Parts: sequence; C-alpha cells; structure tokens
Amino acid sequence: MATGMLLVCRLALFLTIKSNLLHSQQFTISFQRPSDCGVEQFYDISSQSCVKCGPNQRTSATGLSCECVTGFRVLATNGASITCQQCPLEKPAVTEDGYGCILCPGSLTEQGTCQCPSGSILVERDVQGNPLEEARCEVCNGAEPALSAPDSYGDRCQRCQASLINTSQSCMCGSNILVSPPSIIRVYTNLTACQALGNMCVMNMHSFSSVANDACGLYNTIFRATAALGSTQDISYWRANLPWLYYGDQPGLANRVLQTEPLPTGFSFKGHINLVAAVYNARGHFLQWEKVGGNNLQCFLMVTVVLPSHSAPILLPCVLSVADLLSVYAEPLFYDVFVDLSRGEDRRLLPLPTRNLNQEYNRKFINRGNLNDWYLSRRVLLVDTLSGREKSLSSLPKVIRIASSIRIGFQLVPGTQKGQVFPPLLSVTYSDVLITAPNTQTVSVSFAVDYEMDQTEAHMKTDIALGVLGGVSVLYSLVKTASWKRRIGSPLIDMETVLKFLLFYAGDLANVFFFITVGTGLYWLIFYKAQHFVSVLLPLPGPQEERFVAYVGCAFALKTVQFLHKLIQQLSVDIFFIDWERPRGKANKTIQGNGNGEAKRDPSPVSIWRTYFVANEWNEIQTIRKISPTFQIMAVLFLLEVVGFSSLALRDPWSDLQRPPQSYSPPYSLTLRYGLAATLWLCIGLLQIIFFTAFHERFVEDKIRQFVDLCSISNVTAVHILCFGYYIHGRSVHGHADTNMEEMNINLKREAESLCGQRGLLPNTDTQTFQISITSRLRQQYDRILEPLSRRNGPSRLVDAASGHPFDQSTKAYHTMNRFLGSVIDHAHRDMEYVVRDKLFFERVIGMEFMEPMDKSIFYNDESHSFSDVLFYGNEATLLIFDTLFFCVVDLGAKSFILAGVLTYVQQMIFRLIRNGIGRRNLANKTLVDQRFLI
Amino acid sequence: MATGMLLVCRLALFLTIKSNLLHSQQFTISFQRPSDCGVEQFYDISSQSCVKCGPNQRTSATGLSCECVTGFRVLATNGASITCQQCPLEKPAVTEDGYGCILCPGSLTEQGTCQCPSGSILVERDVQGNPLEEARCEVCNGAEPALSAPDSYGDRCQRCQASLINTSQSCMCGSNILVSPPSIIRVYTNLTACQALGNMCVMNMHSFSSVANDACGLYNTIFRATAALGSTQDISYWRANLPWLYYGDQPGLANRVLQTEPLPTGFSFKGHINLVAAVYNARGHFLQWEKVGGNNLQCFLMVTVVLPSHSAPILLPCVLSVADLLSVYAEPLFYDVFVDLSRGEDRRLLPLPTRNLNQEYNRKFINRGNLNDWYLSRRVLLVDTLSGREKSLSSLPKVIRIASSIRIGFQLVPGTQKGQVFPPLLSVTYSDVLITAPNTQTVSVSFAVDYEMDQTEAHMKTDIALGVLGGVSVLYSLVKTASWKRRIGSPLIDMETVLKFLLFYAGDLANVFFFITVGTGLYWLIFYKAQHFVSVLLPLPGPQEERFVAYVGCAFALKTVQFLHKLIQQLSVDIFFIDWERPRGKANKTIQGNGNGEAKRDPSPVSIWRTYFVANEWNEIQTIRKISPTFQIMAVLFLLEVVGFSSLALRDPWSDLQRPPQSYSPPYSLTLRYGLAATLWLCIGLLQIIFFTAFHERFVEDKIRQFVDLCSISNVTAVHILCFGYYIHGRSVHGHADTNMEEMNINLKREAESLCGQRGLLPNTDTQTFQISITSRLRQQYDRILEPLSRRNGPSRLVDAASGHPFDQSTKAYHTMNRFLGSVIDHAHRDMEYVVRDKLFFERVIGMEFMEPMDKSIFYNDESHSFSDVLFYGNEATLLIFDTLFFCVVDLGAKSFILAGVLTYVQQMIFRLIRNGIGRRNLANKTLVDQRFLI
Repeated sequence: MATGMLLVCRLALFLTIKSNLLHSQQFTISFQRPSDCGVEQFYDISSQSCVKCGPNQRTSATGLSCECVTGFRVLATNGASITCQQCPLEKPAVTEDGYGCILCPGSLTEQGTCQCPSGSILVERDVQGNPLEEARCEVCNGAEPALSAPDSYGDRCQRCQASLINTSQSCMCGSNILVSPPSIIRVYTNLTACQALGNMCVMNMHSFSSVANDACGLYNTIFRATAALGSTQDISYWRANLPWLYYGDQPGLANRVLQTEPLPTGFSFKGHINLVAAVYNARGHFLQWEKVGGNNLQCFLMVTVVLPSHSAPILLPCVLSVADLLSVYAEPLFYDVFVDLSRGEDRRLLPLPTRNLNQEYNRKFINRGNLNDWYLSRRVLLVDTLSGREKSLSSLPKVIRIASSIRIGFQLVPGTQKGQVFPPLLSVTYSDVLITAPNTQTVSVSFAVDYEMDQTEAHMKTDIALGVLGGVSVLYSLVKTASWKRRIGSPLIDMETVLKFLLFYAGDLANVFFFITVGTGLYWLIFYKAQHFVSVLLPLPGPQEERFVAYVGCAFALKTVQFLHKLIQQLSVDIFFIDWERPRGKANKTIQGNGNGEAKRDPSPVSIWRTYFVANEWNEIQTIRKISPTFQIMAVLFLLEVVGFSSLALRDPWSDLQRPPQSYSPPYSLTLRYGLAATLWLCIGLLQIIFFTAFHERFVEDKIRQFVDLCSISNVTAVHILCFGYYIHGRSVHGHADTNMEEMNINLKREAESLCGQRGLLPNTDTQTFQISITSRLRQQYDRILEPLSRRNGPSRLVDAASGHPFDQSTKAYHTMNRFLGSVIDHAHRDMEYVVRDKLFFERVIGMEFMEPMDKSIFYNDESHSFSDVLFYGNEATLLIFDTLFFCVVDLGAKSFILAGVLTYVQQMIFRLIRNGIGRRNLANKTLVDQRFLI
Repeated sequence: MATGMLLVCRLALFLTIKSNLLHSQQFTISFQRPSDCGVEQFYDISSQSCVKCGPNQRTSATGLSCECVTGFRVLATNGASITCQQCPLEKPAVTEDGYGCILCPGSLTEQGTCQCPSGSILVERDVQGNPLEEARCEVCNGAEPALSAPDSYGDRCQRCQASLINTSQSCMCGSNILVSPPSIIRVYTNLTACQALGNMCVMNMHSFSSVANDACGLYNTIFRATAALGSTQDISYWRANLPWLYYGDQPGLANRVLQTEPLPTGFSFKGHINLVAAVYNARGHFLQWEKVGGNNLQCFLMVTVVLPSHSAPILLPCVLSVADLLSVYAEPLFYDVFVDLSRGEDRRLLPLPTRNLNQEYNRKFINRGNLNDWYLSRRVLLVDTLSGREKSLSSLPKVIRIASSIRIGFQLVPGTQKGQVFPPLLSVTYSDVLITAPNTQTVSVSFAVDYEMDQTEAHMKTDIALGVLGGVSVLYSLVKTASWKRRIGSPLIDMETVLKFLLFYAGDLANVFFFITVGTGLYWLIFYKAQHFVSVLLPLPGPQEERFVAYVGCAFALKTVQFLHKLIQQLSVDIFFIDWERPRGKANKTIQGNGNGEAKRDPSPVSIWRTYFVANEWNEIQTIRKISPTFQIMAVLFLLEVVGFSSLALRDPWSDLQRPPQSYSPPYSLTLRYGLAATLWLCIGLLQIIFFTAFHERFVEDKIRQFVDLCSISNVTAVHILCFGYYIHGRSVHGHADTNMEEMNINLKREAESLCGQRGLLPNTDTQTFQISITSRLRQQYDRILEPLSRRNGPSRLVDAASGHPFDQSTKAYHTMNRFLGSVIDHAHRDMEYVVRDKLFFERVIGMEFMEPMDKSIFYNDESHSFSDVLFYGNEATLLIFDTLFFCVVDLGAKSFILAGVLTYVQQMIFRLIRNGIGRRNLANKTLVDQRFLI
C-alpha cells in the first residue's frame, strides 16, 4: 500500500517535471511573416502567425485579413473574421464594398465585380446611398463645361487634370508634349515637372554631350531657351521655374566661382558650419528644408552624434548595410545643399558649388582633371535605388548608385588674418553597387571636411631660411676644418681634409635642418592650435607634408653621419695614464730572472692598483650623460600618452588634452606630431641638463669632477692625445699615494684643512685640466714609443714571429712612456718644452687657436673639463638631437609614440653597449690595463 | 581724343570689375522656408523663395501654391500660376474643385463652398459629371439595406463602418462600447483595437493596480475574461486576439521564465544574435517585421555601422538630439522583440522577456528589487512623443518619454560546456525629458549587451585554494622563523620572533595571493578568449571584480612589506674586507708621530688601493639585477601597446590584436588586464633571467663572478656577517698582489696556465664562497672589536667628549679586525675553530641547518654565490614580483599601461637610489673606506 502510494507520488512528480519542461519549451514560436502565409491564410497580427481563412475566403491584398473569393459577398463580420455567402445567379456580381450582390450591365471583372468600359464609371447606389438592383455604367462628359473624367476608383466623374485642359481645352489627351518649341514648354510645364526633369539629369550624373538628347540635354535646351524668362534670386545660372543644376552652360567657370570672392563672414574654428538642404523627391516635389546632420546624409547622423558640433577637419569612413540603404532610401532624395550664414535675423544661404567626379561632358570625365576644366554643378543625390530597378518599381534593383565619397573643402584666402575663406566646394564621387546579397552586403562610404591653404609662401620662407643657414653652416664647417688642420699641423689639402670637411658639414647641416623643422612644427602647433580666427591651416597629408618629412629625413641622416663620426673618434682615442709614484724602499722579494736563479734586491715595486682604479673609473664614465636617457623617454611618453599631449597633434584645432573616450577623433598631422614630439623631447632634455648641472652635479654627484679628484688623490695623471689633446694633471700633493688607510685618511684630512699645496700643474694654481697643443717633435716621440703597442694590434702571427714576447715589449713601452711623459711634464726635456696660457675669448668663440705650437707645446687652461669631449658626456647636444630625430623619425614612420620610445631605448642601449665594449677594449689596448680590471 | 578714349577704357574696366564683384557677391541667397511666407505669398520650390500670389489669391494649405480667396474661382492655370475670377452674385459659392461657381441650397462655409447638414452629402455634378446649376444636399439612407453614410469628403453615400452595423444593425452610433461584459467585447472588438489598448498600457509603463481602472487594468480584465478563448502559439500568457503584455497575471514568475530551461541552440561568440521585432503603431496597426539593428532602436544604427556583426558584450552610450527624436519618432512605435533562432528552414523565434524598470504594481516599482518579485512583460516602446502633447496632436509635446537604458542580458547555464544560455532578459528604463529647447536639447541613452555567469563556483574554488596555500605558507614561515632563531642562536620566543614570523608570513602570503590572482587572470584570459562554445564568462564590473581587485591589493601590500623588510636588512648588513697582504720591506719615509719629531723606520705600508678597488666594485654591484628593469618595462609596453596585446583585455571574446581604428571598442575587463599584464611581465622577466644566466653571464659578463675573482686577485677577502653570514675567500695564490703591472701580468698569466695553487679556502679546492654559521664566542669577539665603529654612528658630540679622536679609534679597530679575522681564518685561535662541510640535500631544500655551531663555527660550501642575497641580485624573485604587482596595481587604478610603466620606472629608480645611497653609506661605515672612493 505504501509502495503504491510512493509510486503515485513519483509519477505525479515526474509528470509535474515533464509538464514544466514542456511548458518551458513552448516559449519559442515559429517565425512567420505576412509573406510566408499561403493563399488561404491571413496573418494574425495578434498571434503573429498565419491563420487559415474561413470557407470561401482568401487572403486580402495586405495579407492581414481575409476576403471573400470571387462571387462571394461578405455576410457578416465580427472584426476578427468574416463570413461569406455566394451571390445568387440573378445577381452574380459582388458590389465594390464587398457586402452586396448586384446585376451588371456588362461583363464581370476577374474579381467578380462589374466592369465598365474605359471613360465610364460604375454606379451601384443612388445618390442617397440606396443600392440599385442593377448597376449602371455612365460615360463622363469630357467636353466644356463639364470637363469631367472618371476618378481613380472609377466610380465618380470629376474635373479632369488642368494640364490636359490647357493642352486641348477638353479631357482628351493632346499631341506629344515633349516636342520642344519653347513656347509650348512654358505653357505645359508645371513646377514639379521641371524639378523632376532636373532630378533625372542628376541621376544621370549631370552628364551630357552636344549630340545625345537625354535628360541633361533636354534640361540644357530648356535652360538656353528660357533665358528671356529671367533668373531667380539674381543668380544668372538659375532660371525661373527650373532647378539650378549647372554653373554656366559650359565648363571653365570653376575658378571664378571658387576663388574670386571670400565668404562675407569670417570663419572661426570655434563657430559652427551649418549646412542646410532643400530636399526634393524623384517626382520633383519639394519635401522640406533639412538641417544637414540629421540622418539625411548617410554618415552625417554619426557625425552629429559623435562629434562636438564644431567645425573641424573630419575624415569619417563608415560601412553601411545595403539592406538599410534599400529600406531607408527606397525613394531617392535630392539635396540642394547650402551653407547657412545666418546671423540672428539676417538669414542668408550660400549655395555650395558641387564637383561631381562622375560627371561627363562630351564623354569625358571633366571634373577629374585640371581646375580650369571643371564644370561645377548643384543638387546631389545620396542613394539612387530607382534607376537600377528592372521591369517594375517594386522589384529589387539590380544595381544601386551611392555617393561613396563626400568631401567639403574650405580654402583659406591667402594672407587672411580674419579667417576669410572662399566658398567651400562639395566634391561627390558616386559608385555603382551591384546588388547580389542585399541582406549581408555592405558598402563603404566616407565623409570628409577639409580645410586647406596655399602653402607656397610657407615653402618659400622655409627655403630662404634653409639657404641662408646652409650658407652659414658651410662657413662654420670651413672654420672647423681649418682649425682641425692647424691642430694636426698639416698644411696639405688632401682627401682626408675634404672628408673631414664633409663630416663637419654634415653635422652643421643636420642642425640647420633640425632647427628649421622643429621651428616649423612648433609654428604650426602654436599658430594652428591657438588661433581664434583662422589664419593658418595645416599642410594637407600628401605632397604638402612629404616635403616636410623629407627635411626631417635629411636632418636625421646627416645627424647620424655626425654621430657615427664622433663615435668612431671616441672609440679610437689615445689615452695614457702617468703614474707619478716612485718606489719607497727595497722589497725583500726575490725575483727569479734570467734563468740563473740569482737572488737580487730590487726596489719595492710601485703598486699598479691605483692605475687600475683610475682606469676602471675612466671606463665607467665613458657613457654617462648629462641627462638620464631612460628618464627622458619615460617623461616624454608620460606627457604624450598619459597626460594626453598627443591629442595636440590631431588635425583639429582644439587644444584639449583629454578627449571623451567614444568621441570621433580626426587623423593625426605629421607636422604637428613632429613639432610636438621634438619640442617636448628638447624641453625635457634641457630641463634635465639644467637639473643635472645646476643641482645634481653640485649637490649630489659629479662623475667628471670625481674623476679629476681621483687622479689627484691617486697620484695618476691622464693624458689623451688625439690630434689635439687633453691633459688631466693628477700629481698627489702629498708626494706619495701608494700607502695604507691610515696615511690616506690623514692626507685627505690635511688637504681638507688646506694644510698642503694646491693640486694645479703650475705652483699655487688649482687648474688640473688642460687642452694641449703639442709640437710635432713631441708627437713623433710619442708615436715612436707607442709603436710596439700599436703593432700588437696587427695580425698576431706576424707579431709572434717578429719578437719573442709581445707582452714584455708592451710592458717595456708602458714604462718608457710613463717615464717619458713624466719627464716632459717635469720640464726635463729641453727640446720638448711647454708653456701654460689662457685661451683668448675669441679663440673660445670660434673654437680655433691662433698660435701654432712651433717649438713649444702649449697647455691651455681648461676649467670646463673639455676632456669630456672624448666621452658621451661632452657631446650631449649631438646625442640629444640624434635621439630626438630618431624618436621623431620612428614616430613619423609608424605613427606610434610608444614604438618610437621603445626603439629609441633599444638604439640607446645598443650604442651604449658598443661605446662601452669597444671603448673598454680601446682603453685596455692603449693603457695596457687588463680588461679584467675594467669592470 | 586719346585721353578720352583711355578714360572710356578705364571706365569700362572699372565697370567690368564692379560687375564681377557684384556678380560674385550675389551668390548668397536669402534663407526662406515655406513657413516664412506671408498669407499672400507662396513658396516657389524652384527659386526656393517666397513669391507673391496673384490678385485675389492667398497661399494654399501646403504653402507651395496659391489658391483663390473666398468667393473667387480659378479661371485659368498654367501650371505655375493661376488666375482668379469673382463668382457672380447669382452663383455665389465656389465648387469643391475650385473651378466653378454654383448656387447653394443652404448656407456657405467659411471657405465659400456650399454647406450641407451633418449626415448629408453635397452634390454639385450629375452622374455624368455635368455641373448642376444649383447644388443639392442629399441625406444618406442609414437603414437596412442601404446602411450608408457620407464618406470622409462629404460628397458621396457609402456603406458605413462594420462595427457600427454590428452594434446597432444600422449606421447609428450605439451605447458605450467600453462597458465590459466579455461577450460584448468579443463581438465589438476588432484586431487593431486590442493592439491599441495594449499599446496604451505600454505607454502607461505596464503599470496597474487592483483598484485603478486604467488601460492596463482594462487589459487585465479582458485578459482574465478571455481565458476561455484559448491561448495563442501554445503560450498560456498569450490570449487570442490580444497582444502579449505580461508573463502571467501577477508577479513572481520571473524565476521560472528566466532560469528553467536554456535556449535550444548552443550559443557561441562566433555566431550572431539576430533580434527581430514586430512593429506596431499607436493605433494598433501591424507595420512590419524589422531586423533590430536597422535604425529602429536608436543607437542600434550606430551599433551595426560600427560593430562587427558578432555577438559580444557591448556598452554604447550615445547622445541623441531631441530635434531628431521628434522628427524620426513623430509617432511612437511599439516593438515585440524576439531572438531569431532560425537555422536554415527551421525558423523559430524566442520571445524576449522584458523587465520594465518603471513598471508599477500597486504603486510600487516592482521590478527594481528582488528577482522573485519581478513582473516580466513584453512589448517595448522607444520614444513616446504622443502622451506629452497637450490639446492637439499637432502641438509640440511638453514632455517626451524615452527608453534611456536598454540592456540585453544573457545568463550562462552553470557548468555548461556547449554554451547553453537561459533566455536573455531585456531590461528597459524609461526617462521623461521635459522639452524646453528642442533644437539644442540632447538626451543621453545607452545600449548594452551583457553576458554573465554565476561566479559562486569560481569564488569557492579561489577560496579553497587560498585556504590551502595560506595554511602551507604558515608552516613554511614557521620553518623559516625557526631557522632564523637557530642561526642567531637564540632559543627565546620574544617580540622580535613574533615580528620576524609576521614578516616572513607576509612574504609567503603575498606569494600565495599573487599566484592565485595571476592564475585566475590567466584562466579567464585563456578560457574566455579561446572558447568556441561559450563555457565561461567574465566577472562583471562591480562586486564580482572588486573581490579580485581586493586580492591583488592584498598581494601588493604584503609584498611591499616583504620588500621593505629585505631592503632594510640589506641596508644594514655588516661587511668587512680582510687584506691578506703583508708588508714587503721597509720604507724610507719619516713619519712625524707623537709630536716629538723622532724619525723612525716603519715597515713599508701596505697599499689600501686594493681594498678601495674591491669596496668600489662591491658598491657597484649592490643594485645590479638578473634582469634589466628598464628593458623589462620597455618590452612589456611594446607588447601591450605597440603589438597590441592590450586588445586582449577588452571584454569581447575576440583575440585579434589590431582592431580597425574607428571600430567600436568595448570596455576593458580588470581581470583580463591584470592577467595579461602580470603574465606578460612574468614571462618577459623569466626570459630575461634565462638569457642573463644562460647566455650573458656565461659569455659576456658576470658581475658576481667578477667580484669573486677580483677578491682573489687583489688578495682581499670579503666577510658579511649578519645573523648568519657569508664568506668570500680572496687570498691571492701568489702571496702578494700589491705589486706593479709587470708582476700582475705575470701572475695572471701563471694562473691562466694553472702553474700555481688553487684559489679555495681549503687546499686543492676551488670553492671561494661559503655560508658561515658562527659560534657565539666568535660573534661576541667580533662585536667587541666593532664597538668603537658602531659608537661612531651615535650622536657626534657624545663621541667627541668620550675619546679624543674617533677616527684614530676606527682605524685602530679596522686593523684589529683585519688581524683578528685573518687569524681566525688561519686557524690561529684555538677557541674559535671552524670546520668546512657541504650542506645536506634536505638542508638545502628547507633552508635550515640541522647542526648548531656549538664550539666550532661551520663553513658551508656555497657554489651558488648565495652571498648575493644581501644584494638586489640574489632577490630577483621578490623584486620581480614586487615590480609586477606595482605595475598591475597602478594599471588597475588608472587603466593605463603607459602610466603604470612610467610609475614603475620611477619606483625602481627611487628604490635603486635609496639602496645605492644608503648602501654606500653603510659600506663606508662598516669597512671604513672613505665614501669618496665608492664612485
């Protein structure tokens, strides 16, 4: 019993679940549309499904209800359904309203109603509405004074059309009205007919030729013939009663229309451009005035939704679905577009001249070539879904024509300060789209607003600046070359001199290009973004910008040459450390020399570790700079991408840094990007240099000063001899430096308390750094001593063959050099004397010495540590400009500040590695310090 | 004569110019619209201006033509204009067609035509169309069988409306049809009437209460009364002939509708969601089936234009102009929205349940609270410009109601693999907009598509993982604390022990949080982006994501604690350099000591420069890392922002890196951003570590190895004694290192040729690096020697008072320490003996030594340079995770990878400066090397 109960419960549970499931699943319905219903079904709008009609019924024309089949009348209706009854034989026809049966005077139509001959009307009721037993056919009287004809339902006589009466004084159709004596045309047209003709011409792309007689040809015939009628609105191209389609009756007026007279009102980016359009349909009816920016001009809806409603350059590509076009533009609309110049009560419109790129004139695309050939027109069409329909107007068009590119171009009056512009030009390009799959097909269209100005003057100014500064840089490079020649003491003009001149010239010219391009970019940035009334407009993408980019490219290429030249110079610099330390006593160590095991007492060796220390430090300061290159990149990226400075490079005239996220953003201007990036880079670089020189080096750490101090403390002097040399005097004021910590600390303390002499080369001076200009005798001697070392760099097998042990030779050379240079500084060589003097002011300015080191070398006091010229440190300007150009060139190529930043970082890293690696090897070679100590 | 000629020419020229100017200026026209024209003007569509009508004429209703004034008939028309003539007195009225004059049977209307009483028609012509002399008024016969009434023009008797006939069997109007006995309703309704009633209910926000009798109340009365009629489409909520407005007749079914049964077809992001809607107008007429995504649902046009037509989460705010709304939605449209599930021939629709947030039930907003209270409905309205019109339908509405937020939410079936979703829910919020300035006013609306899943399970799994790993980390921290206690040799559990445990635990817990959050982020990234059928959906912004962000915050906070702990440890590390060099001979220098000027011969001092060199190198390797931190940032930014990985963090399911520029981009998911950024950061970090350890350190440069080598070459040993210590053995195998370059080179060469002993601490071993565990006796001795040094760090005045010259004391301490440590290593102290042994495998694994240094210190061989634990180098894991978290936390806060990169760089720079600066001071303090040599 209990089991049975349980079973019932389970069953009930199961059924409940099942019914729930069924209940849930029923929530989908079959998708039926009115067109899916069969001939005996109607579409029930309440249940959204096809429902079968009652007996003797069929679906009505709308498909949403049923009607009785032929020969049946409606007996009763209850709103949702009807009942039908067959008409008796004596009254076989159904009345027009479907509710009654009637006898016909003549035959029956297919629908089972009475049929009257053409020109007659069918009468089924008397005047009071009482049904007649038998229908009557009555002929309408078409003659004066009745002038009547059947109405569209065929059940009433009405006054017939005025144009018929005008033609024939009766309701009969006259002769062919398209034959064209002007007087007849004037009589027979009405207002919409002329518009309709104009629209046909527009659909025909405004094209005509002198031979064919199509819509535009007919329009022109009428245009010429109606000259006497006078023009409309005082515009000679606009005839009374005709739409205005062309500027003049032949090409060649474009120049006069577009560039003669500016708009009466000044144009400002802060204002709006209001476009309005008079809209006509294909039948020539005027529909309304529309503000362009509703949903009439395709993409314009998006423009108004997305854009701030200010005037700015726009380029808006978008993709439209063909299905949408077919539904929205079922009937083509025609737009006469105007610029609305209204100010308060004074409402004025400026007709927008239109350049139809598809317009043909005598079978040539006349508007694609030279401005002087253009044939401007008016009235545009957005989508033509009409011309492509075959057979019937309800069929799907085979092809639609769409305005695929719409561009409104404003041209600034040259030299204007008040923002005067010439009348804007509307350029339209149409494309034909073959309809293959309307539901999935899409078309791309674009809408652009452009502002341009004549850049000839700007180009000319740039060229003048380039010419002048280029000339100056030639002179400057010549001076530098001369100075270099003097320093190396060679009077001959050889290949090397020319090459050197070219290298100097490359650097100077790079600077000229750089400053001109940065100046130009900054000029555009400031003047374009800050103007209230428009007076300058950006160069357009394309040829106008390419010229600018070419200049930047030149600057970069030349700067690269200069940078590589400096790099190679630095990598091959000669350097030598002189150790002033002399042995203090005798060491107890036994050196096993000469193979004979003889023990002898040598002087205790001077420790090499101070030299190692100095060399190690020199190695470390090779690539330090006056700025932190990584901080530079980070700061620039931060300002551009986080703070939002990059918005300043957009082609629009606003200077807002942050834009709302979903808003339309115009394309970038290369000129502005370059101006912005270069300016920011330079500014941050300068700020960093100021910070480092004015604060960091003074209060935190100055690596260069530290090195000079180290030289002095460690009793080691550094000499760089290139063509021209540097000397860092580092003789310990305590005589000895190779000592223990105790003594070192005492020495340091004594010096801090000024208890000992000064560090300078000359007695009682502090100057430790010098530029040296050496006599050729000294140089020859130096080279001679260095010979074994330089031979070491040759092919190793040769060296091995030449002399037993190159390493010994090097060490010997090292000691010789140490002794030799030390004695020169100590004035021990009578024939290699030197003098110390200050540089003249003018010598400093032009960077060239007037005195030649004939028999005495000259040591120029140099407080500004110009020995750092052989380090990255002393070439900050070159490096900064090179980095700036590198960053900008990458950005111009890839239009990505981040990529530019990353690549600049990689470039800096690579060159730093090269400079460090090769520089270290060079240092090891030249100073004989083992590379293992340069860490 | 010539002068006169010239004058004429000039005049002609002047006139030409002037006329050209005039000619140019005439290209603006006055802006006139039909509404601008006066009562005696018409709007000429050809010239687009107002033109005066002829005499006796006034503007017609359209404004586009003229008509004759009252009492005048049209005499002639030529299409563009008409001529009017006054009617003679004997025929004072004008016919309806306007062309004739007629005598009236009764009075005249205001328009000057004949007026007939209501129910009568005006007859002006006979059946054949001949005009009558006098018009007649005829009464329509409304009784059976004629059943006729005047038509809308009032000039003909027609069969009257079926519903009137049904009610009264005549054309008379019956009693009030809204009284509600169901039988009568059924009889008198027609299909559109029920729809119209439904639409009124929709305009009333579906709201009703049990007492009021408004549109929705009436609908419900009918709904209940027509239960017997049966339901439509097998859906019990959908009565025949009625629109479907509610799910059930009372609230509480939402759960069953929304979460019982999933959709029959699996749902995939690669497919489309097609929405279709049946559209009705306010009068209840069915208009058409529309694909939603045309321009019907406001923003939907933008969606189709901008979006790829795939299903994806969308949030699209947009701003619409009120003027557009008023023109496009002049008549409100009603949408029954369905999801189209059609596959090929099987066309099925799923009705979309609607949650109307504004719906009231018994005066409560029922749909804003709990799901169980919801009362789902159907049929939505986008813009209601109708209800707000006062007085007449042509007036401007005072207020419009707009669907300001539309959201379609899909909910995933829990645990589905095939992408099953429950029926989506359409949520609509309406807002009322007061019309103040329709031409400039805008309204904000938003459209969203969301996909959500129940995150409870994911949360539970996370919590379990967190619990388990958290427990493990407690154990691990305990082990670490115990190991630390053993190392410092303290058996007491004091405050410091607890603090230490908490610090260890912070680090371990940070790792747990970090790996769980990264794992979760990566999980979403992979599974969400890669799925074909949908099985996981992202946590929604809001509470679901906040939980995740909180975990990340915990990880970051705890990691910061660990990082700061390690940093402070490193900044206070004890370090000492032992110089093994012994003096070689006697120096000749005279030291003036003790103020008595006595000259004595000291042993030649051992140069301190080797110690300087080693200390300098140690200073330089303090902040080197196994990765390049800047390269890390650059690489991550490059991948995210240039290559475009950041697109992966968008909430849509595509994994395309580059998106077309103008396309719609959905908002970012915080979870994905974190997963992506952390994964990329870790991957690049690991790649860098692999590159550095496997390639760079082996073939280019290994700073740590170099330091160890340097110790050995320079005969200087480094000892770090923290609680637990490190020892780097650096005794030169050549006995002496303080020598000149020649000897150094020879030494280096001998070692390269393996001609001398090995560098290890024990004979014939190579091991130079050890971990040391020292006895308390050794430690005490060490501390005692160090006392004067540590006192130096106290307040300077106290020190000055205590002992004459702290510097002397330091130096003395330095020498003592040097000698003491040297003798310990040389086994010179019997009571401070040590042994060298290998670590056991298990000791390595758990990082804790089993043996306690009771009477002998223990030196553990340590090939892996674990002394780098006191440098950044040995803590790469902590630093990498800290950087990762820092980057991610900044990004989560600011949603900008670039800002995160920049700030991470700044953070790294600051901590590097701190570590370098304070570390350098610590080094100087502990080793007594002057800071000026640490450059």
